[in-house]
Amino acid sequence: MSNPLVGVIMGSDSDLDIMSEAAKILEELGVAVDVQVISAHRTPDKMAEYGMSAESRGVEVIIAGAGGSAHLPGMTASYTNLPVIAVPIKRENHGDESIKSSRAMPPGIPLAVMPNNGARNAGLYAAAILALKYPEIAKKYAAFRTKLHDDILAKNQTLQDVGWEQYLNGVLD
Amino acid sequence: MSNPLVGVIMGSDSDLDIMSEAAKILEELGVAVDVQVISAHRTPDKMAEYGMSAESRGVEVIIAGAGGSAHLPGMTASYTNLPVIAVPIKRENHGDESIKSSRAMPPGIPLAVMPNNGARNAGLYAAAILALKYPEIAKKYAAFRTKLHDDILAKNQTLQDVGWEQYLNGVLD
Amino acid sequence: MSNPLVGVIMGSDSDLDIMSEAAKILEELGVAVDVQVISAHRTPDKMAEYGMSAESRGVEVIIAGAGGSAHLPGMTASYTNLPVIAVPIKRENHGDESIKSSRAMPPGIPLAVMPNNGARNAGLYAAAILALKYPEIAKKYAAFRTKLHDDILAKNQTLQDVGWEQYLNGVLD
Amino acid sequence: MSNPLVGVIMGSDSDLDIMSEAAKILEELGVAVDVQVISAHRTPDKMAEYGMSAESRGVEVIIAGAGGSAHLPGMTASYTNLPVIAVPIKRENHGDESIKSSRAMPPGIPLAVMPNNGARNAGLYAAAILALKYPEIAKKYAAFRTKLHDDILAKNQTLQDVGWEQYLNGVLD
Amino acid sequence: MSNPLVGVIMGSDSDLDIMSEAAKILEELGVAVDVQVISAHRTPDKMAEYGMSAESRGVEVIIAGAGGSAHLPGMTASYTNLPVIAVPIKRENHGDESIKSSRAMPPGIPLAVMPNNGARNAGLYAAAILALKYPEIAKKYAAFRTKLHDDILAKNQTLQDVGWEQYLNGVLD
Amino acid sequence: MSNPLVGVIMGSDSDLDIMSEAAKILEELGVAVDVQVISAHRTPDKMAEYGMSAESRGVEVIIAGAGGSAHLPGMTASYTNLPVIAVPIKRENHGDESIKSSRAMPPGIPLAVMPNNGARNAGLYAAAILALKYPEIAKKYAAFRTKLHDDILAKNQTLQDVGWEQYLNGVLD
Amino acid sequence: MSNPLVGVIMGSDSDLDIMSEAAKILEELGVAVDVQVISAHRTPDKMAEYGMSAESRGVEVIIAGAGGSAHLPGMTASYTNLPVIAVPIKRENHGDESIKSSRAMPPGIPLAVMPNNGARNAGLYAAAILALKYPEIAKKYAAFRTKLHDDILAKNQTLQDVGWEQYLNGVLD
Amino acid sequence: MSNPLVGVIMGSDSDLDIMSEAAKILEELGVAVDVQVISAHRTPDKMAEYGMSAESRGVEVIIAGAGGSAHLPGMTASYTNLPVIAVPIKRENHGDESIKSSRAMPPGIPLAVMPNNGARNAGLYAAAILALKYPEIAKKYAAFRTKLHDDILAKNQTLQDVGWEQYLNGVLD
Repeated sequence: MSNPLVGVIMGSDSDLDIMSEAAKILEELGVAVDVQVISAHRTPDKMAEYGMSAESRGVEVIIAGAGGSAHLPGMTASYTNLPVIAVPIKRENHGDESIKSSRAMPPGIPLAVMPNNGARNAGLYAAAILALKYPEIAKKYAAFRTKLHDDILAKNQTLQDVGWEQYLNGVLD
Repeated sequence: MSNPLVGVIMGSDSDLDIMSEAAKILEELGVAVDVQVISAHRTPDKMAEYGMSAESRGVEVIIAGAGGSAHLPGMTASYTNLPVIAVPIKRENHGDESIKSSRAMPPGIPLAVMPNNGARNAGLYAAAILALKYPEIAKKYAAFRTKLHDDILAKNQTLQDVGWEQYLNGVLD
Repeated sequence: MSNPLVGVIMGSDSDLDIMSEAAKILEELGVAVDVQVISAHRTPDKMAEYGMSAESRGVEVIIAGAGGSAHLPGMTASYTNLPVIAVPIKRENHGDESIKSSRAMPPGIPLAVMPNNGARNAGLYAAAILALKYPEIAKKYAAFRTKLHDDILAKNQTLQDVGWEQYLNGVLD
Repeated sequence: MSNPLVGVIMGSDSDLDIMSEAAKILEELGVAVDVQVISAHRTPDKMAEYGMSAESRGVEVIIAGAGGSAHLPGMTASYTNLPVIAVPIKRENHGDESIKSSRAMPPGIPLAVMPNNGARNAGLYAAAILALKYPEIAKKYAAFRTKLHDDILAKNQTLQDVGWEQYLNGVLD
Repeated sequence: MSNPLVGVIMGSDSDLDIMSEAAKILEELGVAVDVQVISAHRTPDKMAEYGMSAESRGVEVIIAGAGGSAHLPGMTASYTNLPVIAVPIKRENHGDESIKSSRAMPPGIPLAVMPNNGARNAGLYAAAILALKYPEIAKKYAAFRTKLHDDILAKNQTLQDVGWEQYLNGVLD
Repeated sequence: MSNPLVGVIMGSDSDLDIMSEAAKILEELGVAVDVQVISAHRTPDKMAEYGMSAESRGVEVIIAGAGGSAHLPGMTASYTNLPVIAVPIKRENHGDESIKSSRAMPPGIPLAVMPNNGARNAGLYAAAILALKYPEIAKKYAAFRTKLHDDILAKNQTLQDVGWEQYLNGVLD
Repeated sequence: MSNPLVGVIMGSDSDLDIMSEAAKILEELGVAVDVQVISAHRTPDKMAEYGMSAESRGVEVIIAGAGGSAHLPGMTASYTNLPVIAVPIKRENHGDESIKSSRAMPPGIPLAVMPNNGARNAGLYAAAILALKYPEIAKKYAAFRTKLHDDILAKNQTLQDVGWEQYLNGVLD
Repeated sequence: MSNPLVGVIMGSDSDLDIMSEAAKILEELGVAVDVQVISAHRTPDKMAEYGMSAESRGVEVIIAGAGGSAHLPGMTASYTNLPVIAVPIKRENHGDESIKSSRAMPPGIPLAVMPNNGARNAGLYAAAILALKYPEIAKKYAAFRTKLHDDILAKNQTLQDVGWEQYLNGVLD
């Protein structure tokens, strides 16, 4: 696999279950990723170094996931001019701190916010950005989107064929 | 000015005061924009046509702003594979419907959400995306970010020189 | 069963467990329904076609259920002049995005919002609308409402007969 | 004007400024309305009588607006089998009590909720319901919707003609 | 047991598990209660009759519990001049509709709101009201409060004796 | 005027504009009140003394108003067995801290919560409590409630007489 | 162990599982603690005595944890000039009353609020305060912080060595 | 004035109106302060340098104020072992992002959160911390607290002397 175009970082390795979905979909679309655990609060020096060096290391998009106060996405955006995508991590019984911490960045430092735990969509958004420049990614991303569309049509056809009662009992179970 | 790389759309012309900030910063960074009023609810046919034709018209990033139920950004993202940036419009006494309507897109259809009324940051994020491909935009965007940084240092120097009481009375007034 | 008077649509077949309650109560009241899976974000073309053709297909009321950003109900209302009823889908640990996405429609495009997961009430509301025109539906709906009333009276009578302690132990268990 | 098909009620005459928008749009669409001040909390007997007699008085749809605890819409729905449309009234600095009080009705008693202060949409929704039965209302409602659509197209044309800067300065001012 | 001084009502018998706590504590304090299932939405006629007759039946305080839109407490307060105490019922994954529906009553119709599911405190508050008039209730209520106080002191003494680690392991387990 | 039956306390004299509404309505109903400024946080010793001595001073109901963290109502309830009524004070741009601080009292210490700034309803609730014991208060309170009812009927009669357009223009202005 | 420098108090012994984390980390850092159960609402006299005597007993920082209305932290801050740290207790399905009750203290009575259930951070914050005066605590606290930093670096090194897929399967499981 | 013991920093000079209240009260209590404008997002390098050097410059407590995403307080706490006090800045129509961004710090990095715009209380809390070590500050802080207490008593005395009606008209006006 070629040089990583996308950096996926997270504040704790306990969030790898969610954040790995970004890596997974990107690799399916043929995009190499670099996955790292970097804590804004526990390793601020490492975060600064990561952000400042990303561009020179060939990274083009950064996906940053964090829960709670979630300063990692916004601070990474402060250390680089690359587009940064925030994935707010929200576990059961958590509040909405993580998404709110990312969604009120000051004028001048843009940050793109995904849905809670939306690592998969973050990967897809990174692909959409890279598709502007890399035709092969564009092709794979378009195929992914077409399949999404056709899968719904197919499910609906089955529903029409069997009726809602049988679908509910027989298909979903 | 060259062919528009960024499309800026909004659900109502009453939101042009906010959405024009995206156009303004992009033009300052040398990026041509196409600004249109397209309502998801009142002109769904026009929205579909706009989304489906954007790529072939040479647009590379779409910025969509809407208030209230705010279906324009998410629906536009459904009609195109280009990266779409949502600007939730929030007026005085409004609730948080617009930001929530954009921030829970289903897996598969990514949408980047900016802060409420964050049209300026949307423009900057579009610039950061385009900077990956267009070196001239990259150069102007980097200069913008450096100026932001230096302006704070300059203000702080003045504060150190005059003290907080005089700064409060004499500089802010 | 006659031509469907009510269309029940949902953004994902995983919501059929909730949305089928609308179909069920309507069929109990003698109203034929047409149930389909149509995703606003994944099959926007199908949604447009469905909305624009509903009236000519004889549908008189549309019930649309969706979770998350939940653009299906509002967008369907944009494509038809028929009365549309929104059912916000809310699963465990979900936020309130779906109900908020439906409850702030712009002036001019009305949408009736039911409680979260309120598919059964959506079916009843559709019946109340149709009852204005179809006396047989009116009759069945009125009987349903009377039964609701009498069931409470009957339960209260039992409570008076056995006392709260025995009711709690013996009737609810 | 013929017998009122729509009843518009509100909990306080201080809400007439908002609720009159329902009456106004309905009269524009040729639908006669009956407007009354009825308080759920201060005149519960009057509310009960109103709800129970509505159907026999020829009313087909009821629009009920109330602020604060806002029991009027839900209680009216309890006293009649007619479709009832709730308009939550929300003044500056109010909380979200009124919309929440209407949007969690128990299974069995359906109530259609409009946006906060959405009296105009309530009137339009009533028209959409009546349009199923009265072709003349259907015709006027369809014309209203077409005009909404065309007005956006016209505004966008002007925007394209003059450009966003001049539109912002010259058209909105 | 003498004539019931307190009426405990609820919108559904499924809430008896929570509302019975009011009856239980009141009976422990020697106050007779009348427990009934009365639905504001499904049996509004019964609710009106209950509220209007309560005073003449010798009831002095009414405790009303309801979930969801929760119109029972406020409407009962509208039908009687007796002090009414609202118990908002909140089940797992419910929103805050029930407490909000009770806490914004209009000026003129007072309603005392307890914590979510606070039926036990509702019973105690009723006792505090009746204690002003019935010395025997006052005596029992004062003894209850003194015991609450002394129980905490006793627990703290144990904690001081055994230390927090042993208390945690040995006393709570 | 006789010995005060109701104590009205507040955390700051800046809240007297709101809390005086309790005193005013009570005096109109013939109930003597004792009004004091007592801060839970700034004068906790005074608050303790007030709470512990209230019963012996002949007070029967306490109305306590406070904003922000609003510990005064709950702490006063801890120092007395009398019924205490909380009035959450909420100024423009305040959050909901004050009502939340009062509405989650622990089991065993009941506190009746009124609407935000609901001092007038607090006074009326105190009257409803005292009406159980003092027939003269009961009589005046019943007359107050009857007038509320009749005022709405009168307003509605005017509305019927003049129509909503003239009422809006001529009566409300 | 020497005289306790930190007092850890809580409103109920059922909160000892959370609050003991403060005691535990402080003892690990060599700081003696005094742990007590004191209820603001059930033992207000004990709370007053505790707060007023803390300074003379040699306590330098107080950590107070409470759930629900949570008056203990703020009231303790009212009875002492020592720095007080609030730990809002939030159990499953609880609202945000406890953190809101502590976070809106009036001007003049400062209170430091930790995250929900943040007893461990409260202990660390107490250590940071004491570190200003006691070099040995400063040394241990600094070592703790260094270890936090190095642990993240070590985890990231493992992640780089084994790759995200193996890390997810082999290290987290 | 001696070497600054307290550092007051803020993300924008537009917040000096609020943050200067911390400097003001500290100077009144005889504590020297160092006031600086440092943006987490626009000058992250400056923030890192400030945090890492604070201890060696003789600062003992840091007060950090920021609005919106508000990463400054938490990130400063990451760069120093000194106690850091967060002041969430909340302007009219702002959301609660700033207080939420500070109140969910991860275990290990403590941060003390004040009320929204609570710069004055932040200054007082810093004084309470320093009072443990500097007797002169302790003395001034205690005098400040005593005056707060006595001012309330004096106001209440006036209220008792003139009655609530005259107080409302004559003292507050």
